[in-house]
Amino acid sequence: MTRQGLLIVISGPSGAGKGTICQGLLKKNKDLCLSVSCTTRPVRPGEVDGVNYFFVSKEAFEKMISENELLEYARVYDNYYGTPLNFVEEKLSTGQDVILEIDIQGALQIKQKYPKGVLIFVVPPSLSLLQERLTKRGTDSAESINKRLQCVCDELKNTQRYDYLVVNDIVDNAVAQVESIINAERCRPANFDIKKFLDC
Amino acid sequence: MTRQGLLIVISGPSGAGKGTICQGLLKKNKDLCLSVSCTTRPVRPGEVDGVNYFFVSKEAFEKMISENELLEYARVYDNYYGTPLNFVEEKLSTGQDVILEIDIQGALQIKQKYPKGVLIFVVPPSLSLLQERLTKRGTDSAESINKRLQCVCDELKNTQRYDYLVVNDIVDNAVAQVESIINAERCRPANFDIKKFLDC
Repeated sequence: MTRQGLLIVISGPSGAGKGTICQGLLKKNKDLCLSVSCTTRPVRPGEVDGVNYFFVSKEAFEKMISENELLEYARVYDNYYGTPLNFVEEKLSTGQDVILEIDIQGALQIKQKYPKGVLIFVVPPSLSLLQERLTKRGTDSAESINKRLQCVCDELKNTQRYDYLVVNDIVDNAVAQVESIINAERCRPANFDIKKFLDC
Repeated sequence: MTRQGLLIVISGPSGAGKGTICQGLLKKNKDLCLSVSCTTRPVRPGEVDGVNYFFVSKEAFEKMISENELLEYARVYDNYYGTPLNFVEEKLSTGQDVILEIDIQGALQIKQKYPKGVLIFVVPPSLSLLQERLTKRGTDSAESINKRLQCVCDELKNTQRYDYLVVNDIVDNAVAQVESIINAERCRPANFDIKKFLDC
């Protein structure tokens, strides 16, 4: 029996450092695989189809929506972004654990369509530190930052919808915590190979 | 806010190595605390009350039963053995994680009384290896060993009642898996200190 892979969803507010955690995780764990999203936005120089994204036409994307072939999707301005069900299911069926980095709306969509998905919410150590990070980044106005902070507070009222919550204080520690979560989830009874236990 | 400690219940068939795993765990993690059981059996030379067991009279034990002061208990021949609720609750309330090593009947009693308890079932790598270990130990008759093996097979039909299943192939790996489980459970949203996040 091949163990069904785990779908590990890394989510959290922007500025929490979920991207850095994913990079650290993938660098240390070559057996993990990153989910590749579909998008209708044009290819940028240096991007490779099937690596950075699956680049598809608007029509193809809308067909995927109507045929329920996406775990989640969102429209950002004129472009669609989504997680192709096929890609993820194929990896999981061969026992590969798949990492997916996504905002919280997408994460909750996934949890609805695939409840076995393990939803990890990454938070910065404190709200004031998040404010500081976003301000330093310099890409958002003060108003937009305040909106984001309010958003984080709202998201934290629903922590019971996430399976785990990782505080990203020191990146290496946060990566280690996510590794512990993955190791623990691999020990769920559903993954136990009873046939192997009885035969050998 | 002091985080409520975790009650980690290490269970499994005899010969699975749950005792060795607990020892390894406690040696490496000084912040973990081992639950001390109550018993009515006489003190043996070298044993210390409150360390090896809480030694109580039969009357005192039966009073604990009737007043619902035990997380679980069992009668073995003429003596009672049980897990005192008070001791465990006191440790948990100060944020200490408590380890409890117990057979599967006791573990399921605990899970009923304290559903938040994390139930880890330790199994040997295979049934034939368990048979070999029990035979080598030389304390059981062939008939008794066969009974035990049948028992393990029955227990494994109910794996969904356990939170985690750890295969004890190499002890150090099994200890590391239990450590991962404890780390992961510490990341449950219920343990998140929202006040700390908002204040500092």
